[in-house]
Amino acid sequence: MAITPTVNSAAIRWHGDRLQLLDQRHLPTETLWLDILDSQQAADAIRDMVVRGAPAIGITAAYGLALEAQRLGESATLASLQNAIACLAASRPTAVNLFWALERLQRVAGDLQGNALCQALTDDAESIHREDLAANQAMGEFGADLLPDGATVYTHCNTGALATGGHGTALGIIRSAWARQQLSGVYAGETRPWLQGSRLTSWELLNDGIPVTLVADSCAGQLMQQGKVQAVIVGADRITANGDTANKIGTYNLAVLAQHHQIPFIVAAPVSTLDSALPDGSHIVIEQRDGSEVRAIQGKPVAPDNCPVYNPAFDVTPAALITAIVTEQGVIHHPNTEKLKAHLSQVKDRRHD
Amino acid sequence: MAITPTVNSAAIRWHGDRLQLLDQRHLPTETLWLDILDSQQAADAIRDMVVRGAPAIGITAAYGLALEAQRLGESATLASLQNAIACLAASRPTAVNLFWALERLQRVAGDLQGNALCQALTDDAESIHREDLAANQAMGEFGADLLPDGATVYTHCNTGALATGGHGTALGIIRSAWARQQLSGVYAGETRPWLQGSRLTSWELLNDGIPVTLVADSCAGQLMQQGKVQAVIVGADRITANGDTANKIGTYNLAVLAQHHQIPFIVAAPVSTLDSALPDGSHIVIEQRDGSEVRAIQGKPVAPDNCPVYNPAFDVTPAALITAIVTEQGVIHHPNTEKLKAHLSQVKDRRHD
Repeated sequence: MAITPTVNSAAIRWHGDRLQLLDQRHLPTETLWLDILDSQQAADAIRDMVVRGAPAIGITAAYGLALEAQRLGESATLASLQNAIACLAASRPTAVNLFWALERLQRVAGDLQGNALCQALTDDAESIHREDLAANQAMGEFGADLLPDGATVYTHCNTGALATGGHGTALGIIRSAWARQQLSGVYAGETRPWLQGSRLTSWELLNDGIPVTLVADSCAGQLMQQGKVQAVIVGADRITANGDTANKIGTYNLAVLAQHHQIPFIVAAPVSTLDSALPDGSHIVIEQRDGSEVRAIQGKPVAPDNCPVYNPAFDVTPAALITAIVTEQGVIHHPNTEKLKAHLSQVKDRRHD
Repeated sequence: MAITPTVNSAAIRWHGDRLQLLDQRHLPTETLWLDILDSQQAADAIRDMVVRGAPAIGITAAYGLALEAQRLGESATLASLQNAIACLAASRPTAVNLFWALERLQRVAGDLQGNALCQALTDDAESIHREDLAANQAMGEFGADLLPDGATVYTHCNTGALATGGHGTALGIIRSAWARQQLSGVYAGETRPWLQGSRLTSWELLNDGIPVTLVADSCAGQLMQQGKVQAVIVGADRITANGDTANKIGTYNLAVLAQHHQIPFIVAAPVSTLDSALPDGSHIVIEQRDGSEVRAIQGKPVAPDNCPVYNPAFDVTPAALITAIVTEQGVIHHPNTEKLKAHLSQVKDRRHD
């Protein structure tokens, strides 16, 4: 069954026997769609960053495996798909959702063969896509409940339709609040050094007709000082057992500024982001990226080529600065270890239903 | 008499009958020096941004007028210099130091003629240059006194040798502290959208052998959180009667972050920056710049070309967040209206000596 999210800027379109991916490498200047017909093309698209964002990568891998089974048709078995699985798994070595999706499809495959296997894998890939959309929409509704009417919000990086099945996490809340006519507008921080705010978030919001104003990351304080922002909404890469949150570099600046101005600071993330194995943020290893990302912008040098650079991908916002964490299961107000544990046990209970 | 500051990255070299300017438009990739031989060339250099920074512009205009008088030689009179003065005054319409320098030279000129006029204007242009260097060095010493031994400091924008007679204001404090072997290193924020930190400050510090690490502006919070910064030092565009400080956009973010981490936040500015006509920061009009500065970087589009942008040039840091204001006359700790008034009256007393 085709799944084409109604959101204008959704980057994944599924046609039952063909996947279309919006090539995000060319945004915001060009809108190019690539046809994906087998697992090799799906793996290439993931590796080459045609598609990015953990949920979107997981969905693409699942469809890639389903397409490979369709290609094999009557001769499809789990054994015959092992090369495709290895190839997809190797496409982005640290993408948790990628491995999770491939494992889930292998469990579904079991001993099935031929058309039955094709059908099972296709159905499950579609389920993964639909579940992600549903989780995003649930998060969107829970999060929108936290916003005052007529709010203008500030967001960072890209956490939208482009990064997910077609709605978004932090940007999903913004999308849901806009649909409810509850939002006045959005300030998007450009998010140096990768400029996801400029390249992706502003494109996505413009495309969906949501009023967006792009700003340099340095503007956030002044906007809050002038009363132009009523909430900050960001995503999360990982949330530890006590609620400390690792997210794109610059998130912590925003959290401190929001506290100083007594503005709600809201983190949106699926339950899968909660990592109860780590007690707090001090255990999170911060990925260090190459200095060339700061010394040059899109190939243009902007600093001396021998200049030392410190370029961490993430920072950690302590739970004490977070007003609420929103998951697809609900809201954790003023998060701490006890509340996160309770939230996770509810989820577990529901999964066992 | 030639004045060539010993600082490697000084951008103004005076040879008595010729001015050399470092063409800052080509930094950091190229180091080109332009010869300035008359007032027209000086005005062109100011208008075309070969030279930038209010003190550096004032010095360049003064030398430009002195060179014009030298060119006229025996026939030089104040009347014969009026075209040159008008041309220099029109080169950057809002540069306070430019008008101040030209007025000062006209007062010095008086009724002098010919070689006596040339000599008087040349001497006074050199005095303006030397006084700026001396003021910067005084500020540097006063400011360095505030830093703990072995400090690593964070700075924003460019306030260095490139923007002044050859030492700097905020960067002058850093330079003086380094000369005293009191400093471990400097983090320079890249300073979007104009990237003065990347293009100018990092070049300048590398050039002078002061250990610099370039970071995205979004990194500041994490650096403070991790204890990597012992002071924030910035310049000022204007300081109102109560100590509120307008400076490059992003300065206010740094002030809030510094307060949250209990790190000293130091503003360095010559007395001429104190504007006692304005009671507080709410009276400062913030210049709004074109959105294209955020939508594109060095001509490369990084956001949709129809994306609305909010691009203020400055923000205002309330005096309550400022640990100290450093001028060439001394230090104002925890500034307020009373202390600034006392500081200014000391200056007036000395001027009347």
